[in-house]
Amino acid sequence: MATSTRPDPAALAEAVLAGDRRAAAQAISLIEDGYPGRAELVSRLYPRARSSYLVGITGPPGAGKSTLVDRLAGGDRRRGEQVGVVCVDPSSPFTGGALLGDRIRMEDLATDPGVFIRSMATRGSRGGLARAAGEAAVVLGASSPRVYLETVGVGQIELDVAETADTVVVVLVPESGDGIQTMKAGLMEIGDLFVVNKADRPGAEGMQVELESALRLRRDRSWQPPVLRTVASRDEGTGALAEALEGHRNWLAVRGEGERRRRRRARAYVKGLVYETLREHLWETAGLLERLEGRIEEIVEGRADPVAVADEIVAASGMVRVTEPGKGTSDA
Amino acid sequence: MATSTRPDPAALAEAVLAGDRRAAAQAISLIEDGYPGRAELVSRLYPRARSSYLVGITGPPGAGKSTLVDRLAGGDRRRGEQVGVVCVDPSSPFTGGALLGDRIRMEDLATDPGVFIRSMATRGSRGGLARAAGEAAVVLGASSPRVYLETVGVGQIELDVAETADTVVVVLVPESGDGIQTMKAGLMEIGDLFVVNKADRPGAEGMQVELESALRLRRDRSWQPPVLRTVASRDEGTGALAEALEGHRNWLAVRGEGERRRRRRARAYVKGLVYETLREHLWETAGLLERLEGRIEEIVEGRADPVAVADEIVAASGMVRVTEPGKGTSDA
Repeated sequence: MATSTRPDPAALAEAVLAGDRRAAAQAISLIEDGYPGRAELVSRLYPRARSSYLVGITGPPGAGKSTLVDRLAGGDRRRGEQVGVVCVDPSSPFTGGALLGDRIRMEDLATDPGVFIRSMATRGSRGGLARAAGEAAVVLGASSPRVYLETVGVGQIELDVAETADTVVVVLVPESGDGIQTMKAGLMEIGDLFVVNKADRPGAEGMQVELESALRLRRDRSWQPPVLRTVASRDEGTGALAEALEGHRNWLAVRGEGERRRRRRARAYVKGLVYETLREHLWETAGLLERLEGRIEEIVEGRADPVAVADEIVAASGMVRVTEPGKGTSDA
Repeated sequence: MATSTRPDPAALAEAVLAGDRRAAAQAISLIEDGYPGRAELVSRLYPRARSSYLVGITGPPGAGKSTLVDRLAGGDRRRGEQVGVVCVDPSSPFTGGALLGDRIRMEDLATDPGVFIRSMATRGSRGGLARAAGEAAVVLGASSPRVYLETVGVGQIELDVAETADTVVVVLVPESGDGIQTMKAGLMEIGDLFVVNKADRPGAEGMQVELESALRLRRDRSWQPPVLRTVASRDEGTGALAEALEGHRNWLAVRGEGERRRRRRARAYVKGLVYETLREHLWETAGLLERLEGRIEEIVEGRADPVAVADEIVAASGMVRVTEPGKGTSDA
């Protein structure tokens, strides 16, 4: 099976479910590359992945997220758990791959057969990265009861990715400005746990206090996110972080919030697939691309109005609108 | 006109074209808030804005972009030019506004009537920010021959925004790691000019050399992006940057590249409007949202397959596909 470039999705899914690491690696590569059997593959893995605990780790570059994940996964391994790790790494379209791939990441774990680590880069298609990362988490979740999804940076993609997790950990460092950048990036709302890493540096306690007071302003008061200090490089505070993760996981189960998040995740995933499919197929609609190209010159010369052209294209796409019910091609 | 909350778009456009600053401010606020007359307003301003020179300034937080824009705009003002500045500032959904609004930005220019400065935040709708920023640039471009579009950070939104500019300036600082972060964020491909700001700090020259050698690997060899060193806070190197901008602008004109970029910008703008409209109206299609909600529980419980549900919704949306030509509602 591993020799074919376009393997059968059913066979590939079976191999992934059986714990075949090479099959998992191949599945993720195929997902990244837009493999036609992707839909069937993900569908077959989804039911098993549902019960896996997905932890999102996000924060600015250089905050030490990889080291933290390394420590957390090390603890899981000592308890005998299988662990999956997905690192989302928006890289340059011109280098064509993940620069961090060259870096020695998570050296303690890379040789452990109970850990599966995978880096994902954009490869030029920025739009689909959040979806691809979510699907990679499904692949790993189908064979590991716990998956860490690490994102580099605080952009749109990271926020989308974090929203698919059961628990979101926001990692910061004591340096000035980080607190305000976090608030700007919207991370205060999405974090379930906050970590001030590299807490042996000056300002760590002040930052913790700053974060705690900012977090008291959150709209959702049902869960008060703890703020922890860690020095991941020396494995300090990481045990407390693991306990805080379990605390949040228990809260999710007891309060029914876990179910709510699973529904939200399923909804976001389906909606994303729908938008992606519409975008992909829109320009295949007979005459639509020609219609657009025919008007571009006029728009540039100021003879046509871009908004009117867009409306014209939407109308020509034939998408059913509320005012025109009953035009759906499938009503089953 | 300024008293009405929903002013007539034609009258508002006329006031903007006449150089009324309050009208421009109101127009941008309305665009941010999803004003129904937005389409007509933008359409009326677009022809005039076409000839404005749009400079995108991007790079990581804290690189000194605002100070650089301040210096560049100051030079433009000494030559008697009107200048518009849009600062895109992805802020927290829970603070509900631009934190940077509190900071005293561009103090030299804020009181100059020949300069119009506007900050934009996400206000919770992250998706539409790139479009809103582009439209704000249209509003300012309708009355100023030169507009600076500054983005904070290096995420998806920033890359989208930068793609709408005539010239893209990437601003970095000598601190370690920045070079690699830049490549990861895809900025090497989109930059037309690179600036190592705060170049009085150690490592500035090394970073310049590193960038120059990385830039020699770019796919597009027709323009070799210059790398400049500046200390914007002391106005050092900013004159050379202004000259480099003129150099790129001339290159755009001579090589026909400016036309190509205007077409690309118009195409991206129309496509973005089309996707946004489809997303907005999709769930208004009779029965579609109910269909989705009805399946979510089944997906969560592993009884339904998310990809199949997405396909089902796309089919039910009634969007015309290549295999079903002639179903467009408008063929004019």
